[in-house]
Amino acid sequence: MAPDCRGVLLSAFDYKTEKYVIAKNKKVGVLYRLIQLTLLGYIIGWVFVMKKGYQESDESIQSSVITKVKGVLLTNTSGTGPRLWGPEDYVIPQQGEAVLFITTNFLETPNQRLGYCAESFKVLDGRCRENGDCPEGEAVVAGNGVKTGRCLKKDRNSTGTCEIYGWCPIERSHRPDVPLLGRTESFTIYIKNFIRFPKFHFSKSNVLETATDTYLKTCLYDEVAHPYCPIFGLRDIVRRAGYDFQDMAFILLILMERSTSPCDCLFRYARYFKNAAGETHRTLLKVYGIRFDILVHGKAGKFNIIPTIINLGSGLALMGAGSFFCDMVLLYMMKKSTLYRERKFEKDNKYVLQTHIQNHESHLLAPLFVTLTVMSLLL
Amino acid sequence: MAPDCRGVLLSAFDYKTEKYVIAKNKKVGVLYRLIQLTLLGYIIGWVFVMKKGYQESDESIQSSVITKVKGVLLTNTSGTGPRLWGPEDYVIPQQGEAVLFITTNFLETPNQRLGYCAESFKVLDGRCRENGDCPEGEAVVAGNGVKTGRCLKKDRNSTGTCEIYGWCPIERSHRPDVPLLGRTESFTIYIKNFIRFPKFHFSKSNVLETATDTYLKTCLYDEVAHPYCPIFGLRDIVRRAGYDFQDMAFILLILMERSTSPCDCLFRYARYFKNAAGETHRTLLKVYGIRFDILVHGKAGKFNIIPTIINLGSGLALMGAGSFFCDMVLLYMMKKSTLYRERKFEKDNKYVLQTHIQNHESHLLAPLFVTLTVMSLLL
Amino acid sequence: MAPDCRGVLLSAFDYKTEKYVIAKNKKVGVLYRLIQLTLLGYIIGWVFVMKKGYQESDESIQSSVITKVKGVLLTNTSGTGPRLWGPEDYVIPQQGEAVLFITTNFLETPNQRLGYCAESFKVLDGRCRENGDCPEGEAVVAGNGVKTGRCLKKDRNSTGTCEIYGWCPIERSHRPDVPLLGRTESFTIYIKNFIRFPKFHFSKSNVLETATDTYLKTCLYDEVAHPYCPIFGLRDIVRRAGYDFQDMAFILLILMERSTSPCDCLFRYARYFKNAAGETHRTLLKVYGIRFDILVHGKAGKFNIIPTIINLGSGLALMGAGSFFCDMVLLYMMKKSTLYRERKFEKDNKYVLQTHIQNHESHLLAPLFVTLTVMSLLL
Repeated sequence: MAPDCRGVLLSAFDYKTEKYVIAKNKKVGVLYRLIQLTLLGYIIGWVFVMKKGYQESDESIQSSVITKVKGVLLTNTSGTGPRLWGPEDYVIPQQGEAVLFITTNFLETPNQRLGYCAESFKVLDGRCRENGDCPEGEAVVAGNGVKTGRCLKKDRNSTGTCEIYGWCPIERSHRPDVPLLGRTESFTIYIKNFIRFPKFHFSKSNVLETATDTYLKTCLYDEVAHPYCPIFGLRDIVRRAGYDFQDMAFILLILMERSTSPCDCLFRYARYFKNAAGETHRTLLKVYGIRFDILVHGKAGKFNIIPTIINLGSGLALMGAGSFFCDMVLLYMMKKSTLYRERKFEKDNKYVLQTHIQNHESHLLAPLFVTLTVMSLLL
Repeated sequence: MAPDCRGVLLSAFDYKTEKYVIAKNKKVGVLYRLIQLTLLGYIIGWVFVMKKGYQESDESIQSSVITKVKGVLLTNTSGTGPRLWGPEDYVIPQQGEAVLFITTNFLETPNQRLGYCAESFKVLDGRCRENGDCPEGEAVVAGNGVKTGRCLKKDRNSTGTCEIYGWCPIERSHRPDVPLLGRTESFTIYIKNFIRFPKFHFSKSNVLETATDTYLKTCLYDEVAHPYCPIFGLRDIVRRAGYDFQDMAFILLILMERSTSPCDCLFRYARYFKNAAGETHRTLLKVYGIRFDILVHGKAGKFNIIPTIINLGSGLALMGAGSFFCDMVLLYMMKKSTLYRERKFEKDNKYVLQTHIQNHESHLLAPLFVTLTVMSLLL
Repeated sequence: MAPDCRGVLLSAFDYKTEKYVIAKNKKVGVLYRLIQLTLLGYIIGWVFVMKKGYQESDESIQSSVITKVKGVLLTNTSGTGPRLWGPEDYVIPQQGEAVLFITTNFLETPNQRLGYCAESFKVLDGRCRENGDCPEGEAVVAGNGVKTGRCLKKDRNSTGTCEIYGWCPIERSHRPDVPLLGRTESFTIYIKNFIRFPKFHFSKSNVLETATDTYLKTCLYDEVAHPYCPIFGLRDIVRRAGYDFQDMAFILLILMERSTSPCDCLFRYARYFKNAAGETHRTLLKVYGIRFDILVHGKAGKFNIIPTIINLGSGLALMGAGSFFCDMVLLYMMKKSTLYRERKFEKDNKYVLQTHIQNHESHLLAPLFVTLTVMSLLL
């Protein structure tokens, strides 16, 4: 046993190498070299050089965005008189989040009090022809108040609207046509973005550490002159709606929704007041505007052995498929194929009669493999 | 040198093919074909057809959500009198973000003024037995104001509460029991979602471009009748809490937190007023409600050669493991295995004595490989 | 045809195995075993055990965060008199979102009315030397109002500021120096986080289901004593700025921006009032504070056959590269390499004269492959 064991151990370090048969067939030889070159070109050129297949990537970016809008504007409408709009009024919410709404137009309904008035004719559910259409206590669908049971009509045959209990007078239904934004040349938005790639414990900000306060107070983003200034002209952003600001390996996508659609970029809010007698009244503001949604996308890559091995290994494995494909060509599509088959497949002498049968054997899987190999070459 | 070089170049295009030994052993042959079929079935059926292994996928979705709630409601509580709730009051924040809170109940504390009153008995840190328990100037932990140094008690031996300086009267501690939502049949929420897959520069919205304003004003989401209507009945959403609205390849998960837990779905806000003398008073509102958190998830796939090659190549590589496994069976587990070994491994004549030793050699790695192969078959 | 077909079918189940040549060369044998061991160690040890290569992972986490701050504070500044700050005042927004701003200092400008006053000297665009520097109707860039056309100066030669129409008096420009946060020992923040991994339909919350209301009312996060308490001391969080709270397989990163930079962590908001005569006035609040941005990151893994096969297959494929590399060493770098070449490559007798040429052939691709193999060994 002892010498046997030693022998086994020693023979484990003999090197065994596959035996090859040389087929002096230039056609298949060239084909095989072409397949090898294609695969090598793919692995090195495409996977490693172009697609950086040796990197693992992290796209689960963590991002924090702070925004700050600057600029004032005076409006003077007949209904509401002079009104000065600062960022504390036209930016909603005021605390500088990644999603912000900038008011560009408004409709004010001042001095609303709880009371009785007619529903707007534009609200479908508020229309009526008789009192029975306005069941008492039922809220008007998508309307302004609760029905009182009375139908207010101009004359007997017309269609009127239900009387409601709600904040009266109700909002006028026409939309004002003087957008504020027509005069916002001087509005600027400061966007500070901090990103972090948790997989790599790497973080970065779009505001350079070298940027001084003075620079940040006076600069204005410009692709050529000030590519690292985080202050953008509002008009400039609006002009490039949907533009990607690519900045130091990550991307700020400023996504905007404008008030072109009647139901998207407007909303209402109310300011409540109390008069000397303690009664509540309110000013309802319907504001139209632009919604900025600052979406951040980024991808970080870093060398990692696992994707490297995967890309290398699977590419090399396909070389085996290439040699299988060339074998098929050699053994079944060449003139001297019978000769090649006899040399490639070594038979025991006693089975020599079965040569003929064996020659056909590879046909069974060959079509499938040829399909696979051709498929992988065509892709 | 010149003829030699030409020879090398020419011979580079000779095709060399591996020499095979035919073992007319049907058991191992069937086993090998089974392994091949299993792997081919796995690669084609599972990886490519079922799991779309030829695609690269993008899950780092960028999403922007706009919401808009419609509906009014009248409440008439003994404390506060009639009160009309519109979306500008019960939706917080009003500007239509992806995270929104819909008030379903409230507790109003009107006319609070800065002054002196007793802390609530429910606040643990506000209880006292003597003045020394209420150090002057110290804030009550999780309380309503700052201790003044006095302990207010009914009689000598009872436990009282500290006097505080704060907004008085303090909020009553009981919770109102008439939820608004009991009558919200007509409340609807419009959810507009815009998604973008940055890797593929592909974007989409859940509001179809063919949807007209009229349709968007009158439709109501229904799985069967109106699957593309972005307006959902609030009651319907509440009923399906946590339901995934799968809509055109991306998913809106409407996540809700209800006010079942005492500390999650309520918060307070205050409205400030000034009286004629310029003194500030406020109305404190403690609101209970449902928090909707619209989370968007999506995955886009697109043909890419790299995952295709990886899946193909690694599958083919396992075929090599299959043939190794069959070799082990043939060379060590069959009756005629010595014969097969002699034919497979070609020896030089001078080393013929070592045949016996060599035969054992493969044992060294065989168990490991058999384990690996069997493992990969079992998975 | 019939017997032929049967023969083909039968021979398909013959097992064909590669013929090997034994090279009794211990150097190459040991090298090959080393390569095999390295690759096996890499696949099993690194890929499967360390990196869990048998798992597919989901990093596209969906997260919902609710926050709630508790604590009150009294400030008493000469300008504004006593003021009590509750969470409804100092937390913005009040509804408990993932991004929240906690006021730590403020500058109040009460009783502003629309009118005429001088622009602040700190605003660059508001400075003037003559009336012509203040074109009427033009907004002051980053200023407080609209120029009226007059330049207000102390004396003839000094630099003055434009008169503006805006909310007067304008905000004083100095920053108060008594931060509120100096006395926030008792402030706590409750962070409830709900996560979901859409790929695995798995969800979890950081608030344990076993946590009782009493526990949640009294506990305070401590790494050792209360690792599962979701209530954090504000001062503690500030101290660990940027700390990752790793809690049950997912991570809360509480990211903070402090008001160290003059333009990041402050903003303004206004409270509007109406006097008895219906005239509007407002209180402008400039608040300084800490912004908390609760970013959630997590990764879930689950066994999946596809990454398992990929890692296994591509590793095994590299074994083929290893044997190619050893062949190169054996056939070109050993003393008896000519002998080995003759045994490895079987030639037809008629081509025997070309032996010499063929021997050089492999040189053409060898350097490339050696490079690749060495590269993969070095990585």
